[in-house]
Amino acid sequence: MPPAAADLARLDTPALLLDEATMTRNIDRLAVRAQSLGVTLRPHLKTAKSPEIARRVGGGAPGPITVSTLAEAETFHAAGHRDILYAVGIAPAKLARVTALLARGCDLTVLLDSPEQARATAAAGVPALIEIDSDGHRSGLRPGDPALIETGRILAARGTLRGVLAHAGESYAALGIAAQADCAEGERRAAVAAADALRAAGLACPTVSIGSTPTAHAARDLTGVTELRAGVYMFFDLVMAGIGACRLEDIALSVLTTVIGHQPDRGRIMIDAGWMALSRDRGTAAQPVDQGYGLVCDLEGRVLPDLIVSAANQEHGIVTRRPGTNGPLPELPLGALLRILPNHACATAAQHERYHVLPATPGPLMTWPRFRGW
Amino acid sequence: MPPAAADLARLDTPALLLDEATMTRNIDRLAVRAQSLGVTLRPHLKTAKSPEIARRVGGGAPGPITVSTLAEAETFHAAGHRDILYAVGIAPAKLARVTALLARGCDLTVLLDSPEQARATAAAGVPALIEIDSDGHRSGLRPGDPALIETGRILAARGTLRGVLAHAGESYAALGIAAQADCAEGERRAAVAAADALRAAGLACPTVSIGSTPTAHAARDLTGVTELRAGVYMFFDLVMAGIGACRLEDIALSVLTTVIGHQPDRGRIMIDAGWMALSRDRGTAAQPVDQGYGLVCDLEGRVLPDLIVSAANQEHGIVTRRPGTNGPLPELPLGALLRILPNHACATAAQHERYHVLPATPGPLMTWPRFRGW
Repeated sequence: MPPAAADLARLDTPALLLDEATMTRNIDRLAVRAQSLGVTLRPHLKTAKSPEIARRVGGGAPGPITVSTLAEAETFHAAGHRDILYAVGIAPAKLARVTALLARGCDLTVLLDSPEQARATAAAGVPALIEIDSDGHRSGLRPGDPALIETGRILAARGTLRGVLAHAGESYAALGIAAQADCAEGERRAAVAAADALRAAGLACPTVSIGSTPTAHAARDLTGVTELRAGVYMFFDLVMAGIGACRLEDIALSVLTTVIGHQPDRGRIMIDAGWMALSRDRGTAAQPVDQGYGLVCDLEGRVLPDLIVSAANQEHGIVTRRPGTNGPLPELPLGALLRILPNHACATAAQHERYHVLPATPGPLMTWPRFRGW
Repeated sequence: MPPAAADLARLDTPALLLDEATMTRNIDRLAVRAQSLGVTLRPHLKTAKSPEIARRVGGGAPGPITVSTLAEAETFHAAGHRDILYAVGIAPAKLARVTALLARGCDLTVLLDSPEQARATAAAGVPALIEIDSDGHRSGLRPGDPALIETGRILAARGTLRGVLAHAGESYAALGIAAQADCAEGERRAAVAAADALRAAGLACPTVSIGSTPTAHAARDLTGVTELRAGVYMFFDLVMAGIGACRLEDIALSVLTTVIGHQPDRGRIMIDAGWMALSRDRGTAAQPVDQGYGLVCDLEGRVLPDLIVSAANQEHGIVTRRPGTNGPLPELPLGALLRILPNHACATAAQHERYHVLPATPGPLMTWPRFRGW
């Protein structure tokens, strides 16, 4: 077997694998895109949760980042990142940890969508973006909501209004680049309209932040936008491939697993990657092609056509042919090693303590720790 | 607020809560049951992953246990457990870690269902149970399969045949105690038939192990069985309540969360427990009552009727009324604390690094670490 495969055969399974060359290509592609669109890229590190990867998304320097927990903010600040956006609606009880980070020199911005949150953050002197709802997906104020101006005024009175943010969460269900470009334009239009409304009320709105992995790759024009966010693009996954936001060969993450049994009369192969290793995410279930709990590849990462993890218990995966397809199962003896492409990279990576990294240049596997918690 | 609630209000959210009194009641109930059925209870610790809890399931002493990973076997052996069953089909590459545990004095038994695995484990001198398939759920040999005797002979020739094991995985979908008792009887009958077949071939079969949480609680008679396994029963969850294997008030685990926003026009309350804190498990989706990503309780653990986490992003939960129900949303202001009952305790607990334990007797919260990995 090739050197990398021999290294993989020495790992305890299940194990999380990261292909460095693929990840680097994904990182570079969006960096070039953001530059050509004239916006700052602020990668979201909720997927990676790794200081090693954080360094790489900034081109080697600790650049601006987005996080989803205060634990991420604290860890990445300790790793040298200064400009951090905590992009989940702030709870007042969390402001003590926020102000502690500010006191340590972190330029942390929080997110909110109500006058009540604005009063609490402004009183604490914490900079904030106002979340704008562009598609009904989750949180945020509509651009025309009178609460937007009220919220902006409360922040501005204490000098803590940084701008607005929108996230087109519905883009994850938009099939094809044309539909994703429409989501991007909706995201842009909502954020810019909100910024314009604040400015018309006499309030400064320096930051206009938008983004999701599909819209970041599909947007054609970002007039009025200052920064772009995306997270899962570093790794990509089957959900992103299923909507056409990437190709299967762009997926940098997989789970290494071992064949532990066979039930030939039922067309089943048992593997030691169950939902504990793959996650319970079934994000492809609603897509045109349901990938079960993941698509099966050989040890070199080549897709074994129509072979999926069709069911998962805690530490057992059941590999079968995709329902509706015909043909024999491949010969996969006891002990054979396989790689499973994940439905949702954020969820699958979260099940693991470390990345086993296949290096872009010949050399031994690297191990990059991941962290978790809140 | 009562003392416990005041302690909870000081936790960072989301956080995993464990009610010690409820857990103890669940542990004691099954211990009494196993005794009255005349079998040894071998609790499965894949749900708990905590030495503190392992000690409690044995009534204070480190008794026989079941595990789903070698990391669990190693950790619980280091914590004093000697009699350990690793109940996932063995891969030959894992035998080095198994024999290292045996060399350290651990009485570790592995599981297998093929002559090929039997040859590898027997050659390594590793004791094994043969997995028996009682319901087509997952792995195992049918009691009448000629491979059973062949596998038994290979093990017996090296003195490593310990017996047989069955797991009625289909019982998790059996609605009501009568259906679960039928599953238990099917599990018992398959295991005993396999043991009888081995004995008829002149092979000793000292251990006849069966169990799942539903069948362990429903079984009426365990003639021929020597030991009973169950795991999630310590905590229970909404999936178990949904099939009638427990009551809602038996659920010992919940996720503490904070209200971070409102969208009154859409009937939505945002919380800071998304799928990262709750898991992606949607095990109640196929049940008569779909609980979304979890059922919402107040800070004291009282169910708020028909209020569920209907959608989840990574760090956002969206609380709504259950579809099809009417009425206003309760008043839950920004910063309010709630507790979410989990669909699947194994999956939800796995998302957390520690249990915050509400003590059975008045006193401060305790913190019990959890481990993970393979």
